[in-house]
Amino acid sequence: MPDLLPRARSSQESVFAKMSRLAAQHGAVNLGQGFPSGSPPAFLLEAARRAIGTADQYAPPAGLSTLRGALGTDLGVDGDDVVVTTGATEAMGLLAQALYGPGDEVVMFDPVFDIYLPQARLAGATPVTVPLHLKEGEGWTLDLAELRAAVTPRTRALLLNSPHNPTGRVFSRAELEAIALLARQHDLWIISDEVYDELYFGQRPVNVRTLAPERTFTVGSAGKRLEVTGWRIGWVACPAGLSGKIAALRQIASFCAPTPFQVAVASALPVARETGFYEDLREGYAARLRLLAHGLRELGAQVHEPGGTYFLIARRPGWDAEALVVEAGVAVIPGSAFMAAQPAPEGLFRLAFCKSEAELKEALGRLERFTTGERRPLARHQP
Amino acid sequence: MPDLLPRARSSQESVFAKMSRLAAQHGAVNLGQGFPSGSPPAFLLEAARRAIGTADQYAPPAGLSTLRGALGTDLGVDGDDVVVTTGATEAMGLLAQALYGPGDEVVMFDPVFDIYLPQARLAGATPVTVPLHLKEGEGWTLDLAELRAAVTPRTRALLLNSPHNPTGRVFSRAELEAIALLARQHDLWIISDEVYDELYFGQRPVNVRTLAPERTFTVGSAGKRLEVTGWRIGWVACPAGLSGKIAALRQIASFCAPTPFQVAVASALPVARETGFYEDLREGYAARLRLLAHGLRELGAQVHEPGGTYFLIARRPGWDAEALVVEAGVAVIPGSAFMAAQPAPEGLFRLAFCKSEAELKEALGRLERFTTGERRPLARHQP
Repeated sequence: MPDLLPRARSSQESVFAKMSRLAAQHGAVNLGQGFPSGSPPAFLLEAARRAIGTADQYAPPAGLSTLRGALGTDLGVDGDDVVVTTGATEAMGLLAQALYGPGDEVVMFDPVFDIYLPQARLAGATPVTVPLHLKEGEGWTLDLAELRAAVTPRTRALLLNSPHNPTGRVFSRAELEAIALLARQHDLWIISDEVYDELYFGQRPVNVRTLAPERTFTVGSAGKRLEVTGWRIGWVACPAGLSGKIAALRQIASFCAPTPFQVAVASALPVARETGFYEDLREGYAARLRLLAHGLRELGAQVHEPGGTYFLIARRPGWDAEALVVEAGVAVIPGSAFMAAQPAPEGLFRLAFCKSEAELKEALGRLERFTTGERRPLARHQP
Repeated sequence: MPDLLPRARSSQESVFAKMSRLAAQHGAVNLGQGFPSGSPPAFLLEAARRAIGTADQYAPPAGLSTLRGALGTDLGVDGDDVVVTTGATEAMGLLAQALYGPGDEVVMFDPVFDIYLPQARLAGATPVTVPLHLKEGEGWTLDLAELRAAVTPRTRALLLNSPHNPTGRVFSRAELEAIALLARQHDLWIISDEVYDELYFGQRPVNVRTLAPERTFTVGSAGKRLEVTGWRIGWVACPAGLSGKIAALRQIASFCAPTPFQVAVASALPVARETGFYEDLREGYAARLRLLAHGLRELGAQVHEPGGTYFLIARRPGWDAEALVVEAGVAVIPGSAFMAAQPAPEGLFRLAFCKSEAELKEALGRLERFTTGERRPLARHQP
């Protein structure tokens, strides 16, 4: 038989898929993959049930005009500049294909959301990472001089992510202004992954597009905002005049996003704004963040609290992710999964707190028993 | 501003998206894009409504195990060899990325379903087309010698589509056996797009995988089978041992297909088999095919009846697709949209008959008035 291409031979199951698989296998509480365990909002579910049976056929590749319009209003852009995608993952992949290719470099931060690296490589480009340094008391810091030094004549784009997964870092206005200036000086595209734009705990994150509208693609996600990660509705707000080309690429990727969910999200976006849904969401997550952070500290872990996202980074030397899922019955993501070039400190993990209070308490209880040596029997070894 | 890459600059709105847009703009009956205008089956809709609110988060990238299992049973393969995709379009794109790249050639037939060409080019490969010859009384014929001559040392794959869109051609067992032999002799992959596998009017199409299981990827679509083109559930059945690599590629394309619709399709597939849903579907479409074909012949068109799909090819010199949508109020797809290298005979069109009897009659009435010179007022010129 002929071989697959190298780009397919080297592709692997992601750590998120793997840890969710292991979690199911071992009956673990899943604090690994970032999906909420609560119910999505009723106004969204009802809208989807109504759409089923009435909007079941192809949507235009760029998205239903009602959804593009609702996103335009929500994001403060022209709806014609918005392209609806099959989740934010697809949006990021399309931008990689459109903006960089063989011989090009794209600059991103390390730790890095794992998918950016293979998407850049699939596009034929070279990802270049700039470290965020984990400093005692300060959290993850960016050295702007290091960022500037990473830009070469081959650089085509800066890939930002704020709030940042996995660190929870929300970049300051001053940092983002410096980045926008750098992009202007070198005539670079900015890809701004803002899927956690409504999930923050301090100051509202700055929308990068407001600093460099002519060169910024803003990626967002109904899955993250409205707690339906399995519905696959994402979007990209493009600089003026470019949505047609991105839509044309997206039509050969997966033609269109699921129509009934486009209808539902279009009707839910204004309701979420008007009813204070996002404020309630943040309040609920802030409480669960406190619960998990406190519990982990009690177990001797060092916790780096996020400014946004529903993840926290904790360090507890001696713990190991595979041992935790099998022996403690708690799935987390090892820090090494997010490290492109810098070494992961031993015992560094990302934990999701978009889970119920009961699940977080159960996870903390299991971790406590694991830590005090009272290990649970291995689920995979049946007698 | 920097430029987009050539692969994005050259991307264009597809003729299907364009004709559907024009149809909406001009109030035309849409016999262009292939989506059914009837209701999807109630057992499917009810299953989806039940899944909403219970299965709203990420599925594994390869698909829910229930759906992979149901597809395995339906297709007669091991469910572990099946990867669920965001529609068949995504499946075809992933296979292009996995199987051919720069310097490689992929052989396909001309007329060609339009998306195969840009997907091959996006993968960096060169599409090579072999003409199907339209012959009086015989329909679209394949010259196996021409196919053999198209294979070079650079060929990596043969891309088949049976029933074939747009011609409706169902390839015979003898033809497919010859093609499988050719693939074995040159050690080529076979990509078999069988999204219309249950939509045929004569003999059941041969499943190519049965002839060369070690090298055939079979692509299918719940949208086509169950009349929900907007739900974005497709699949690819891979040769043994390759599904993991395809799933890994698909996770960086759009991570997973919509979870609630995976649940619904998993429960609907056995019901569709047991209740004779596909038989009823074929019977209904056969009646509408007769209606449309008869009406077009009455208007002086030459009709090439399909062995499968819900499209027919008609020829009526003097008609023009853009004029038809604007002046007659009937959207069709011009034959030229499917021609890669061979010239399109003047007045050749693809018409979809997956529409209601009322719509087909209305379209025929409008075409008759158009043909007899009684044109309708232009919808776009409002006083």
